[in-house]
Amino acid sequence: MSIGSFHPNVRTLMGPGPADVHPRVLAALARPTIGHLDPQFVAMMEELKDLLRYAFRTENRLTMPVSAPGSAGMETCFVNLVEPGDQVVVCINGVFGQRMKENVERCGGVPILVNEPWGRAVDPGRLEDALKANPEARIVAFVHAETSTGACSDAKTLVEIAHRHECLTIVDAVTALGGCPLEVDAWGVDAVYAGSQKCLSCTPGLAPLSLNERALEKIQGRATRVQSWFMDLNLVMGYWGGEHKRTYHHTAPVNALYALHEALVMLREEGIENAWARHRRHHLALRAGLEALGLELIVPEAERLPQLNAVSVPAGVDEALVRARLLAEYSLEIGAGLGALAGKVWRIGLMGYSARAENVLLCVGALGAVLNDLGVSADTGAAVSSTHAALLP
Amino acid sequence: MSIGSFHPNVRTLMGPGPADVHPRVLAALARPTIGHLDPQFVAMMEELKDLLRYAFRTENRLTMPVSAPGSAGMETCFVNLVEPGDQVVVCINGVFGQRMKENVERCGGVPILVNEPWGRAVDPGRLEDALKANPEARIVAFVHAETSTGACSDAKTLVEIAHRHECLTIVDAVTALGGCPLEVDAWGVDAVYAGSQKCLSCTPGLAPLSLNERALEKIQGRATRVQSWFMDLNLVMGYWGGEHKRTYHHTAPVNALYALHEALVMLREEGIENAWARHRRHHLALRAGLEALGLELIVPEAERLPQLNAVSVPAGVDEALVRARLLAEYSLEIGAGLGALAGKVWRIGLMGYSARAENVLLCVGALGAVLNDLGVSADTGAAVSSTHAALLP
Repeated sequence: MSIGSFHPNVRTLMGPGPADVHPRVLAALARPTIGHLDPQFVAMMEELKDLLRYAFRTENRLTMPVSAPGSAGMETCFVNLVEPGDQVVVCINGVFGQRMKENVERCGGVPILVNEPWGRAVDPGRLEDALKANPEARIVAFVHAETSTGACSDAKTLVEIAHRHECLTIVDAVTALGGCPLEVDAWGVDAVYAGSQKCLSCTPGLAPLSLNERALEKIQGRATRVQSWFMDLNLVMGYWGGEHKRTYHHTAPVNALYALHEALVMLREEGIENAWARHRRHHLALRAGLEALGLELIVPEAERLPQLNAVSVPAGVDEALVRARLLAEYSLEIGAGLGALAGKVWRIGLMGYSARAENVLLCVGALGAVLNDLGVSADTGAAVSSTHAALLP
Repeated sequence: MSIGSFHPNVRTLMGPGPADVHPRVLAALARPTIGHLDPQFVAMMEELKDLLRYAFRTENRLTMPVSAPGSAGMETCFVNLVEPGDQVVVCINGVFGQRMKENVERCGGVPILVNEPWGRAVDPGRLEDALKANPEARIVAFVHAETSTGACSDAKTLVEIAHRHECLTIVDAVTALGGCPLEVDAWGVDAVYAGSQKCLSCTPGLAPLSLNERALEKIQGRATRVQSWFMDLNLVMGYWGGEHKRTYHHTAPVNALYALHEALVMLREEGIENAWARHRRHHLALRAGLEALGLELIVPEAERLPQLNAVSVPAGVDEALVRARLLAEYSLEIGAGLGALAGKVWRIGLMGYSARAENVLLCVGALGAVLNDLGVSADTGAAVSSTHAALLP
């Protein structure tokens, strides 16, 4: 066995995440490791909670990163809020809604499904119908920004409907946070989780999370113990809680938290409304280029996410070959379709530090050139021009 | 809110972990992020599995890092191997044995306890008695290297006894891996988990894990579904498995895995037997210095871990003040007591990159000087000389 140090190529990451990580974030990651109970580290944790409150637009006391990827953030919400026998309405319009259903079942809950076509937002009327038909449901779960399809659901309206039916809400904001408007307090979202590796321009591995007081009451009133020790928020809060005294729970991923802190400092410097606008601006430029290439976004315009663009693969084109050539020839990663959309779409991410002019122009130009090579008639010149025009201020 | 970039002080980490991280590992951490399904990344994952097999001394197919801290490694073993109603013998001689009991209960298992005094190894005779008294037990769980006390249990013998009674074994090697002999295949350990931030000199946040075929058979024969989605090894293996095709499960913590890869490349360069010997050599030097200061290790000599040294706090000394002064005056971190030993001991770690001459001499000298300042009569000169003599080849 002869294995040396690993030196990855430099990529341009325009898939569904991880997105390009800003050099400042990588530099923060490599700062000297200190103890997870060091007073300096504890002070940094307090700042991190404040910065996450800024990103989530909330004053929630319980706002912190879970020491594991976004799917552990999801599971943390479900294992704490769902007890055996609880009816939970789950809206499914992609892979991550399906995963929510799995989580409900593994907690012993009873999922009530609102199934939507992939590539569409959740229909508020259908949620309302499900709640009328199931008056005992006390939780509604849905994905704000479906990473598998690029559809954005109207979180504000869905939360309103849930509250009218006395339900708490669990919202997946893994791809939403930092990339499109998300107003945890103004909309009354009860439990929300996200990921570090999408629109925050940070490395993968952490799941920012926020729960309001109604959600905490539900946890405190549980009849049964949370089935996970690692994800039990009663225990996690002893370490992340607001008190001066910290109780050891697990060893925090110290350097990963440095990186998230730096990413959030940068978000604060830019201003979150400016970050939202930046994602939208680059999305419009990408759209202009893709349309000039004759490619179609599968999500109707009003329901599109700026940060994740699902594009139909033209008939007869080997979608995997196109991705392989972009990677080999331009070190450019775009994503494949997932689940029901596997083989049918590419997913082009414009998340965080990936949402910038040079990435958009590279993607449109390289995609056009490779499609031409494969015999698809596409006007790359027009596409580049349209993209460029849309990028001008 | 005015929050700038976080710049930690440089510390010398001689607590119970995280330990000092080698600069090569920090440099690896900051390499450019690539996609978690990138062919380059997948090739790196294969190397990582081989490197972990080297560290665990195993050929186990299922050998990989869990994308979360050591306590999630523990939970991964328990949620996969324990089904509701299963009797599990748990040996408790410190905090982490207690945590194992918690895990058994949360999986719906029935823990059968072998309670030992804190600071002692698990007594093989008492495990044998427990198994004779509970012939339906099918799993034995114990901690190889108890981080809360510094005691090393005889894992080889405990596994032999468990197998004689037709039990699988779950072994906590969080602090053991890389720091003292651990022979997963030769001893027949069925499921074992560790941590990245101890004797591997890596950053915290990952839990290397290995399961043998007997353990996998138990998982495949489960009557019930694993209660955790994130930790379900049936799903995790779809991503980490040996096949060329990887199924998306969760987004791997890409940069953290670079760091673990580099740490393991370094372990391989040093040779694991040499790493064990290095930990032992520096432990003997630390012991010589501590004894010359009049301080006592609480664990009997034959049961001591080299990498974690629990030292009695002298009567009348404010142990927290000593730690605070070491941190303030020498940027040196040593650990407090945990659980039943809180306030009674310091825990001095010599783990991974922390197990080197300059750390040992600094610790002995600084501890002696601070104790003198606080009115404890301790011969710092003799302690430094004894340490120095023990460090000479």
